[in-house]
Amino acid sequence: MQQGATEEQVDRVAHQIEALNFKAHISKGETATVIGVIGPNAIEIKDSLVHLEGVAQIIPITRPFKLSGREWHPDDSTYRVGDVQIGGDSVFVIAGPCAVESREQLMATAHAVKSAGAHFLRGGAFKPRTSPYTFQGMGLHGLKLLEEARADTGLAIITEVMAPHDVEAVAESADILQIGARNMQNYNLLYEVGQVHKPVMLKRGLSATIEEWLLAAEYILSRGNYQVILCERGIRTFETMTRNTLDLNAVPVVRELSHLPVVVDPSHGTGSWRWVEAMACAGVAAGAHGLMVEVHPNPSEAYSDGPQSLKFENFEKLMGSDVEPRKKFIQAHAKNVRNLDI
Amino acid sequence: MQQGATEEQVDRVAHQIEALNFKAHISKGETATVIGVIGPNAIEIKDSLVHLEGVAQIIPITRPFKLSGREWHPDDSTYRVGDVQIGGDSVFVIAGPCAVESREQLMATAHAVKSAGAHFLRGGAFKPRTSPYTFQGMGLHGLKLLEEARADTGLAIITEVMAPHDVEAVAESADILQIGARNMQNYNLLYEVGQVHKPVMLKRGLSATIEEWLLAAEYILSRGNYQVILCERGIRTFETMTRNTLDLNAVPVVRELSHLPVVVDPSHGTGSWRWVEAMACAGVAAGAHGLMVEVHPNPSEAYSDGPQSLKFENFEKLMGSDVEPRKKFIQAHAKNVRNLDI
Amino acid sequence: MQQGATEEQVDRVAHQIEALNFKAHISKGETATVIGVIGPNAIEIKDSLVHLEGVAQIIPITRPFKLSGREWHPDDSTYRVGDVQIGGDSVFVIAGPCAVESREQLMATAHAVKSAGAHFLRGGAFKPRTSPYTFQGMGLHGLKLLEEARADTGLAIITEVMAPHDVEAVAESADILQIGARNMQNYNLLYEVGQVHKPVMLKRGLSATIEEWLLAAEYILSRGNYQVILCERGIRTFETMTRNTLDLNAVPVVRELSHLPVVVDPSHGTGSWRWVEAMACAGVAAGAHGLMVEVHPNPSEAYSDGPQSLKFENFEKLMGSDVEPRKKFIQAHAKNVRNLDI
Amino acid sequence: MQQGATEEQVDRVAHQIEALNFKAHISKGETATVIGVIGPNAIEIKDSLVHLEGVAQIIPITRPFKLSGREWHPDDSTYRVGDVQIGGDSVFVIAGPCAVESREQLMATAHAVKSAGAHFLRGGAFKPRTSPYTFQGMGLHGLKLLEEARADTGLAIITEVMAPHDVEAVAESADILQIGARNMQNYNLLYEVGQVHKPVMLKRGLSATIEEWLLAAEYILSRGNYQVILCERGIRTFETMTRNTLDLNAVPVVRELSHLPVVVDPSHGTGSWRWVEAMACAGVAAGAHGLMVEVHPNPSEAYSDGPQSLKFENFEKLMGSDVEPRKKFIQAHAKNVRNLDI
Repeated sequence: MQQGATEEQVDRVAHQIEALNFKAHISKGETATVIGVIGPNAIEIKDSLVHLEGVAQIIPITRPFKLSGREWHPDDSTYRVGDVQIGGDSVFVIAGPCAVESREQLMATAHAVKSAGAHFLRGGAFKPRTSPYTFQGMGLHGLKLLEEARADTGLAIITEVMAPHDVEAVAESADILQIGARNMQNYNLLYEVGQVHKPVMLKRGLSATIEEWLLAAEYILSRGNYQVILCERGIRTFETMTRNTLDLNAVPVVRELSHLPVVVDPSHGTGSWRWVEAMACAGVAAGAHGLMVEVHPNPSEAYSDGPQSLKFENFEKLMGSDVEPRKKFIQAHAKNVRNLDI
Repeated sequence: MQQGATEEQVDRVAHQIEALNFKAHISKGETATVIGVIGPNAIEIKDSLVHLEGVAQIIPITRPFKLSGREWHPDDSTYRVGDVQIGGDSVFVIAGPCAVESREQLMATAHAVKSAGAHFLRGGAFKPRTSPYTFQGMGLHGLKLLEEARADTGLAIITEVMAPHDVEAVAESADILQIGARNMQNYNLLYEVGQVHKPVMLKRGLSATIEEWLLAAEYILSRGNYQVILCERGIRTFETMTRNTLDLNAVPVVRELSHLPVVVDPSHGTGSWRWVEAMACAGVAAGAHGLMVEVHPNPSEAYSDGPQSLKFENFEKLMGSDVEPRKKFIQAHAKNVRNLDI
Repeated sequence: MQQGATEEQVDRVAHQIEALNFKAHISKGETATVIGVIGPNAIEIKDSLVHLEGVAQIIPITRPFKLSGREWHPDDSTYRVGDVQIGGDSVFVIAGPCAVESREQLMATAHAVKSAGAHFLRGGAFKPRTSPYTFQGMGLHGLKLLEEARADTGLAIITEVMAPHDVEAVAESADILQIGARNMQNYNLLYEVGQVHKPVMLKRGLSATIEEWLLAAEYILSRGNYQVILCERGIRTFETMTRNTLDLNAVPVVRELSHLPVVVDPSHGTGSWRWVEAMACAGVAAGAHGLMVEVHPNPSEAYSDGPQSLKFENFEKLMGSDVEPRKKFIQAHAKNVRNLDI
Repeated sequence: MQQGATEEQVDRVAHQIEALNFKAHISKGETATVIGVIGPNAIEIKDSLVHLEGVAQIIPITRPFKLSGREWHPDDSTYRVGDVQIGGDSVFVIAGPCAVESREQLMATAHAVKSAGAHFLRGGAFKPRTSPYTFQGMGLHGLKLLEEARADTGLAIITEVMAPHDVEAVAESADILQIGARNMQNYNLLYEVGQVHKPVMLKRGLSATIEEWLLAAEYILSRGNYQVILCERGIRTFETMTRNTLDLNAVPVVRELSHLPVVVDPSHGTGSWRWVEAMACAGVAAGAHGLMVEVHPNPSEAYSDGPQSLKFENFEKLMGSDVEPRKKFIQAHAKNVRNLDI
């Protein structure tokens, strides 16, 4: 739309789009309003729109990701969960165990990561495991324990949902829903969380291209849930010394293409606690809006992902050691990255 | 169990296993009966079993795939669908369009592949698509058309199921259920088809290792559905000239490790109809029990996968041209492969 | 050139091309003569050629591989080494140890593979090894032993050359020179073998795309050695159960794009002797012109590649078991592949 | 050796090792002297050494990289080129064009990167190009221009050497020799630069594992040139939106395993100038000792790698914008990484 287009003009265009059986997606940026036309061969209705008042121009979007792309939403998306801002210039940290294993384990970890400065508590209640013979999570009881930990510490919680029929229950407990890497293209699950009014963190699939990842986000966005967070957690390559190859290239690429916030998970991204701190710092330097780190009271006894979990003291070290210089670095750097990206 | 162990002895061992809260899986081969003990740390109950009558030896299975492995089931699994045998020495062919698009398209294809010699009709009613803005399949109406095509041609049908809540409906229509590559680790879906009494064809994930693939099969088997068929359809690599890299190595490897039948899909495995025939032949030569090939009346107008679909005449050519020598080749070769494998 | 263009006309066009500082490459097929113009921005001299007598049309070649592509050389290339034809419809087999280790080892193997029906003897004298602390080959003495084996058995020999300064010595001994996977983009070495008057077998690099592989061939061809053989030996992927992923897709793709013969190496392609036979058969079925198989008198004591080497008896089995049906299969199949390809 | 072992004792052990036809490699750290025994099955001479005076213990090195590993050389290696330290806590920056194209281009770039704060000038005189039909570099004349640029600006120079027979000439001109990714396993070339008395920067191969990369370094070290610098420049994966996938995981992994300095190349690692700054910062945050960045006066007219080259102003921005906070960040971070690593 033209700068200064009225609400009325915007509405009329949106109506016209819907009268033609397409979906209108209105996005108001600071300087301009963009209306997306969603549907197969949307370009065909161009002639029915171009003469409407307030229309500045009609741009065919060749990128297949529409709602997640910057074309219609040039400014960064930011969400607020409690006091914490997701997206923008600050960096938030999610920490906690891979899986909720017991009340003791979860409470101890929740208090430890809270006092070290984390913003969110993670913990898996439903666990997708490669083998059917390994620990599959505590299920609903795990959700209750997470709620208890939130009540105790004030930390908002994030947990994975694996099946469409669990979305309602998980959405009732969790502050942020997580879609795991294996489910990145589980479209029924994506549609389901697309109808929830809470942020969804979508992990990149093990062999998903950046385009496929943004298209998976598109499934959620297209159902009306615009609070999507992307999470880079490593891709599968030939290298065997690390569990995965953390693809930090994806951070500036995604920030250029999309307005959605990006989180980096150096725990899965490396597979070893010894490399988590270095890659957490690198993730932030690359421009990530947040970090997700696995922390466990006693990694050698963890039911899952022990080798990549930090002990409390190492998490404290990660959070505390170089806060001031890193913060300045991030601020200076964030400015540059932003300037380059747009 | 010892050779010549009685039914009674087998039952007593199975009872003892279950009394200890493990699951017993009895597998009767031609020469020996093997009882699998399934559950975490199963080896711990060794001492409670070793002295029972008829027990020959207790072998800790280090391979994480138990029910799909050859240790407990040394002979090839074979299933029967109508008149067609799946597994063993013969080769069966599944053919049809990527997606059911209309009655005309489906019926024309069904008759064409039937007369060319195919054994099963494929056709997607529910389509997993990378983008939410592309054709998502005809859904239940597609299932009805598939039933109609079966009634018309006598071909049994195979179709994909994407969501746990669709399993019942799909299982009522289809003769074989297909789990797509993107859903290979959708564990709730695997559990659901694990309770169906029809064969399930499990496609290998785009970046799934052979071990993960067999473990995904294990999810289905462990729920009691032993009729699993594996399907190699290409993995994701750096090569861009082909849509995927068909990993035929997987055929002899899986045949060595597992008793489950293996199908090769040269359509997805190459991404171009021009290379389908060569790779179909190669798949059979590598030891595949079956082929799955996409066929469409007019590939250039297909809603999906047109470039990799064969026209009727090319499918006929694939089926007809060298039947006799190929059959002898397969028979001679199948014998060798079998001898080497075991 | 037009059909029926005279030698004189062809020469005049070639002269004109070279007068303009480009290189002319004349290729005479059965039905047409094609003259390639090689050099940067060759298309710019179009206007200086189009009016010459006998010129039918000028086709800009967008494919970056010119000499290896089918555009200028539509018919399959075939070479003759002794009595053996390389390329075309027959299938030739190269067999022998990974490395020449001793006279006894080499002679025993040479006689065994000869009597089983192999056409060429392979054996490494210069060995590229990942670690500097492992066996690096016998060098010149290894070449002498290969010559001796040839004298004894009549088998022509193929061996790897690793360094530009060894090309002369190796070319004096060997009938075919091999460029290993690690050296596929060692351009100085490629230029050197490009000046030799013997066939060169170029193995595909571990992570080389098909395009890069053909461009590496182009380095050899562009120096005047047109006898290049391509060898698919597996690419590097995430799968760890096999040493490499044998990319048989590459066989029909390369046969479509290029006139050069293609060999498949199932030994490196799988990394285990147990899967060599299956993948050898699959390679032939995919359309390979030849096979290269590692054979060793006592694989468990081999200095290198023992796990993937066949014992004599297994090589005999591979060669002998199903010769007649396979031959018919190949002939029937070769016809189809050819028809599809062009 | 025991703490406090005398020079004499060390010499005696070294002599004994060499008397047994192995190679002794003496490494003096701050707190201990370690003597490496190099050769096949070195562990077999254990009994001939264990009783010598001053020997503390004999550790079988299972890691196949000996000279590059931390076992024998626990402290970081540092080299000095002119006034610049390579390795340790400071970060050095190499900048310049992909290829030397002309005197004007090189001199302009040399002065620009010098004034922006770079420590070394890069520029290719010999270029490994995928296609034989593209610009192959200026060769010896390029070397002369690099020498001239050094004389003009005082910047030390680094340039690639591609062929064993060029090593002498390149070593005479350059301050640091570069081995390109394609040549990482060109063993003859590695041996040749192993005899030069100048630092060698070894780029990681496109599909080289970290272990293979360190073993390639081992080839150079084992010939007596201990001044090896590693360079991570991106690996080949399925992702196509970036030219390569910069594997920053490799930085902390290599720093843990090896004492050799590591450089990150975000230009090749991403393939686009737009992502170079973010990944340069991320590389430093991950613990890299240096950066290598492509800079060109006019990227759109570069003969090679234009899309990934920074303009002068963007390079200045990368160097200048956040120097102070980044420096503090690096120092604080470097301390942590070091503490974790050892």
